[in-house]
Amino acid sequence: MTRPIFGRVVPERWRTTGATAPGQRTVGEPGTARIAVDLLGGDQAPAVVVDGALRACRADPSLHLTLVGPAEAADAVLAALKPGERRRITTAITATETVNGAVRAVAEGRADALVSAGDTRVLVLSAARELGRWPGIRRPALTAVLPTAAGRLVLLDVGSSVDPDAETLAWHARLGAAYASVVHHVSAPRVGLLTIGTEPGKGDRLRRALPAQLYDLPLPAGARYAGLVEGGDVVLGRAADVVVTDGFTGNVLLKGLETAYALTGPPSPDAEPPPRAALLLGVSGTVVVCHGAARGPDLAAGIALAADLHRRGSVAAIADLLRAQRGIAHD
Amino acid sequence: MTRPIFGRVVPERWRTTGATAPGQRTVGEPGTARIAVDLLGGDQAPAVVVDGALRACRADPSLHLTLVGPAEAADAVLAALKPGERRRITTAITATETVNGAVRAVAEGRADALVSAGDTRVLVLSAARELGRWPGIRRPALTAVLPTAAGRLVLLDVGSSVDPDAETLAWHARLGAAYASVVHHVSAPRVGLLTIGTEPGKGDRLRRALPAQLYDLPLPAGARYAGLVEGGDVVLGRAADVVVTDGFTGNVLLKGLETAYALTGPPSPDAEPPPRAALLLGVSGTVVVCHGAARGPDLAAGIALAADLHRRGSVAAIADLLRAQRGIAHD
Repeated sequence: MTRPIFGRVVPERWRTTGATAPGQRTVGEPGTARIAVDLLGGDQAPAVVVDGALRACRADPSLHLTLVGPAEAADAVLAALKPGERRRITTAITATETVNGAVRAVAEGRADALVSAGDTRVLVLSAARELGRWPGIRRPALTAVLPTAAGRLVLLDVGSSVDPDAETLAWHARLGAAYASVVHHVSAPRVGLLTIGTEPGKGDRLRRALPAQLYDLPLPAGARYAGLVEGGDVVLGRAADVVVTDGFTGNVLLKGLETAYALTGPPSPDAEPPPRAALLLGVSGTVVVCHGAARGPDLAAGIALAADLHRRGSVAAIADLLRAQRGIAHD
Repeated sequence: MTRPIFGRVVPERWRTTGATAPGQRTVGEPGTARIAVDLLGGDQAPAVVVDGALRACRADPSLHLTLVGPAEAADAVLAALKPGERRRITTAITATETVNGAVRAVAEGRADALVSAGDTRVLVLSAARELGRWPGIRRPALTAVLPTAAGRLVLLDVGSSVDPDAETLAWHARLGAAYASVVHHVSAPRVGLLTIGTEPGKGDRLRRALPAQLYDLPLPAGARYAGLVEGGDVVLGRAADVVVTDGFTGNVLLKGLETAYALTGPPSPDAEPPPRAALLLGVSGTVVVCHGAARGPDLAAGIALAADLHRRGSVAAIADLLRAQRGIAHD
């Protein structure tokens, strides 16, 4: 069984259509997005985070950043900005626990979303504790998007649930279906289960036990189970809009394909590369995670993703879809 | 614990340097390679296997094929060949259990190696039973080669051990090191362990327990443990010559990257694409496995790989290296 992580479960009541979650309150200015950035997250921090923050600021005039970390790094961002731009920066100076600091900025309503390239385990635990898990979620799922020959595809989990059970993979199916519907506007998303052969009985212990459960699983957004898919299907993108797997396999495949596409170009010439960043789904807030090896442009793309998801109210809309589907399933 | 599969263990005595294993006897004609081909293996069999056999015959005048399968499929190969070429074909007509038939052809010395795109589990069990496992091997490893930005890399396992234990992954390290030394002529191969982050404590239960064991593991061919590697390192190829993983993750990553490179081109412009076929290491014979979705050119490449490995005596040389290293380790 997947051990439930600590952290309170958010009561149902806030998750009515149109309402926003704690930490998703919007400020007066329309279009403004206030993103908390963990200055010490990532192998090359703070340099790459400073670089990413500056790139993001320059690309989006409505962006406000809360920089969480040491004074020197925050000062490096401020020094590189024009005086008029500096009012878009808030600092939360701390030399330690910058992940927790960024999560708390969202939990306390000082930021609309957060971005970190820090330790995934620390971030998942902190987000579950401070923001709260959705009902039923034992472990939030890191949800990534990959370009495919046919468009793009949602892959989850990519690093949060490394030893999941069948119930957790079933939750990945629900979360991924809702993500594809809300963020990619896919109607009736097809959800595939990643395995190593499409004949019955293929796969490891976990995968061999799962398909029957998935067939019967009520999915949100009119989604349906599209069957077993293989590694190559994640590149071709014809068999499924959402691919469900454990966080170990998903992380290995994601990093392999991202690195391959960075070298060889994308699988479709007209594919716009998605940000190399993942959304943590299953907590009440917009939490974007970059790889530990992320560079400045990746951090900037992660910040832009967080701002976009906040402005579109995507996380609350995904929670609403899941609640509505739960209601139908329980009738 | 990885459950040992059935099949006798080959006694040490045949594995002296220069000796050949049962089923690896060479016939008089130098350079001749006699390859048993499973006509019913693969999703598109027998059509793609017939196509592959013809391509292989035309490319290699010293190739002799033993076609194992139904008469109609064997006749399709014979009909497409010129009369003078037909003496290079032997048939073993059977409508069922073509995998076992191909394995028996090697076990009985009628073929030097075999190629199948059939069910991996059936093939692994049959090969272990009929050819025998090497001492210490509980489950043979499917060993694949991928092109990288820096050259090429050995990846194992890619589909045989889907729920391995630490001891089985340690065996993958030994087998892969010996393969890189014998087949790729790498001196002192670097062996990496595939995981999802290079900080200590990252990875799933299996991976978190393993690195300490690998550090202490005596490896053949002067190989050394090169540490934890991630999905992207399998593309870049700078960190390791051999990458060790479980058969589930390895299969997903292999099929993902192979499909990506087929669409976008290889990770290095001067990389010659390796055959999309894997060698089953740990049994006393040359057993090459193609994907279930293999096409004619893949089957032809698998047959060419089997012939090349046989002509170079690679499998016996790998067994010799492992025996020598065992001898040193036990001194």
